[in-house]
Amino acid sequence: MNDLSLIEQQEIDQMVLLWLNEVRKKTIAAMQQQLNVYTKNDQRDLVTNVDRENERFLTDKIRHYDTSAHIISEEGFGDRQLTMAGNMWFVDPIDGTMNFVKQQSDFAIMIALYRENKPVLAWILDVVNNIVYHGGPAIGVFANQLKLAPPNNESLSEGIVLLSGARLLYGMFGYDRIAKEALGYRVIGAAGPSFIRVILGQAVGYSSKMMPWDFAAGRILAESLGLLVSDIDGKPLDMLSSNIVLVATDRAHRDILTLHKS
Amino acid sequence: MNDLSLIEQQEIDQMVLLWLNEVRKKTIAAMQQQLNVYTKNDQRDLVTNVDRENERFLTDKIRHYDTSAHIISEEGFGDRQLTMAGNMWFVDPIDGTMNFVKQQSDFAIMIALYRENKPVLAWILDVVNNIVYHGGPAIGVFANQLKLAPPNNESLSEGIVLLSGARLLYGMFGYDRIAKEALGYRVIGAAGPSFIRVILGQAVGYSSKMMPWDFAAGRILAESLGLLVSDIDGKPLDMLSSNIVLVATDRAHRDILTLHKS
Repeated sequence: MNDLSLIEQQEIDQMVLLWLNEVRKKTIAAMQQQLNVYTKNDQRDLVTNVDRENERFLTDKIRHYDTSAHIISEEGFGDRQLTMAGNMWFVDPIDGTMNFVKQQSDFAIMIALYRENKPVLAWILDVVNNIVYHGGPAIGVFANQLKLAPPNNESLSEGIVLLSGARLLYGMFGYDRIAKEALGYRVIGAAGPSFIRVILGQAVGYSSKMMPWDFAAGRILAESLGLLVSDIDGKPLDMLSSNIVLVATDRAHRDILTLHKS
Repeated sequence: MNDLSLIEQQEIDQMVLLWLNEVRKKTIAAMQQQLNVYTKNDQRDLVTNVDRENERFLTDKIRHYDTSAHIISEEGFGDRQLTMAGNMWFVDPIDGTMNFVKQQSDFAIMIALYRENKPVLAWILDVVNNIVYHGGPAIGVFANQLKLAPPNNESLSEGIVLLSGARLLYGMFGYDRIAKEALGYRVIGAAGPSFIRVILGQAVGYSSKMMPWDFAAGRILAESLGLLVSDIDGKPLDMLSSNIVLVATDRAHRDILTLHKS
């Protein structure tokens, strides 16, 4: 896969794990203080001082390490990118900011590295449980040091599906039909924690409308474990814009595409 | 409150904590083995060998300790009760069995004690995180040893609301209007973990149709922290049958009752 050796990839992996360890400590410390919470596009679109400080910290680390880095990130410290050429880093400094603010659970910090549009490495840090899900197509996928096996290929009706609550509520994308067919559905309210559940085989699929920093890491980890990642019509994801993303087992992916179209 | 002294209540609390420590170890050990999963009323109504073993273990402990105990429990080792007279124990040996089977997270073990229909003590064990939420109106509410403060009195639009996924999906109880008014909504798929989030102030309210063993413990802990617990019409709960239960902050309770009726 691309031109980085296995050793080089493992070195990058270890380095980013050190950054994440540092940013985790900052995040935990900040959670003991009063958060500054701001709204962005609407009252439900939140950002905090921690989102901004984490993104500043991680983008500085990336630029210092990789002077040719292009960065796509949530809070404005990245670049405006029109192509996936070169080294493309995706940063979500706090994924699930509403959960972070209100629940202090079910949020994540995510980083992904693509080279010439090819998945290389990804990291999803579950801050509260202190578990980093990391790896890629070449080195495999790990929960901290534990190597993960591909999840069972269960169908939609055999498993739990995770859906965007807002889109389900407003009758979009056939989510109601998908939820009715599944054994059960859950609404977690954040992409990283939802991807984690699919990667661990706790859910057979997950779908939501997402921005690139929401799905870039989850896509790499999921595909590296043999899960399918596409848009809700089965087409490849556009890494430079929002997509209605679907990640699922092979069987659930087929079930969901059919229900979406019907 | 009733005729048990504070000391007697603390002794019962400590004793049940020991039972829960024991049943937690059994549950964790059983999770390393192959579970035997059976369906009850329909394909989504699951029970496992662990549900049954845990209930047998806990009802034996209760009957040995309290020879006058009446027990209402999920899996059939309890009694058929027509009144709330005497010492009434409620046991849910695995709350959230689908989560237990599929996710290995977001499930609980719950016990509650009422005397002459009055709340006395309750326990909700978060097995995976090894935290017992326990206490009552006289002794206060604790997360393990940490005493909990009453949650902030936030309104529905200021917070996250937790809803039964199935009832929301099928347009019941005005849950769609409630979800739209809230800052956000989540579907957790189990009562105990949902009550815990409201008790901790992570969510402003939770509503689902529940059996007595689903809500008996949560009601005690929530009311002991100043939260309101009623049915969805604002009426007191019937402790001997199913109810559409609503637990919420004072302000969110009012908001939800209004939306349910509208």
